[in-house]
Amino acid sequence: MKISHIEHVGIAVTSLEEAIPFYENMLGLKCYAVEEVADQKVKTAFFKVGQTKIELLEATAPESAIAKFIEKNGGRGGIQHIAFCMEDGVANALNEVQEKGGRVIDAAPRRGAEGLNIAFLHPKTTCGALLELCEHPEK
Amino acid sequence: MKISHIEHVGIAVTSLEEAIPFYENMLGLKCYAVEEVADQKVKTAFFKVGQTKIELLEATAPESAIAKFIEKNGGRGGIQHIAFCMEDGVANALNEVQEKGGRVIDAAPRRGAEGLNIAFLHPKTTCGALLELCEHPEK
Repeated sequence: MKISHIEHVGIAVTSLEEAIPFYENMLGLKCYAVEEVADQKVKTAFFKVGQTKIELLEATAPESAIAKFIEKNGGRGGIQHIAFCMEDGVANALNEVQEKGGRVIDAAPRRGAEGLNIAFLHPKTTCGALLELCEHPEK
Repeated sequence: MKISHIEHVGIAVTSLEEAIPFYENMLGLKCYAVEEVADQKVKTAFFKVGQTKIELLEATAPESAIAKFIEKNGGRGGIQHIAFCMEDGVANALNEVQEKGGRVIDAAPRRGAEGLNIAFLHPKTTCGALLELCEHPEK
């Protein structure tokens, strides 16, 4: 498998309404999109930082992975995942990880925010970090 | 302040010896440096991913911030911080954050891994995420 770059870093927040002004006014970044991903029960806000995006994530339901992350984190937001852009595709990478004995959360790519094909690796395999593999669907 | 890109993402691990082989053999990245930062009581391992680095961090003492992060995280590793590369310097950025009412952990830049000048913002200001500002000292 070949990773070209970090596509985005996902940050869980309790409120986009509070967090977006911090990233814009304090850090000087520009929020270029807000999108609800119903499937994942989150509302997202995106900022471009060089080659990589910051994706802020607010839960829209208590059963959302983001709500659970915040609950485990003592009610506070925090950095939830890193998404790698796969040059040779997500499906190939998932196969390779599993052939090498690694565990995955998603056995096949699914649709994520911004129309990307995404899949998560299991934190048991990654030594704790939540890592996402992704690709732009036109690839 | 102007952020050019994400310099690195810091991931806490319980053991570099276990984590490095995952990033190398499973993800196909190459560890190009291992460095002990005595001041921060951590041993680090670096991987280049496009414009950004992955910095794995193992605690070398129980009072290290990494040991505390892992303890709060139920004994597991996880993504600990994001470091932004500041085009107009860390000291300027720290002043700007404080002028705008934000809180910082480091009032002045200090020396971090790879000889960078670094400073951390306070998570109360950042809506939860641990964010580092950094610059290459020659700038």
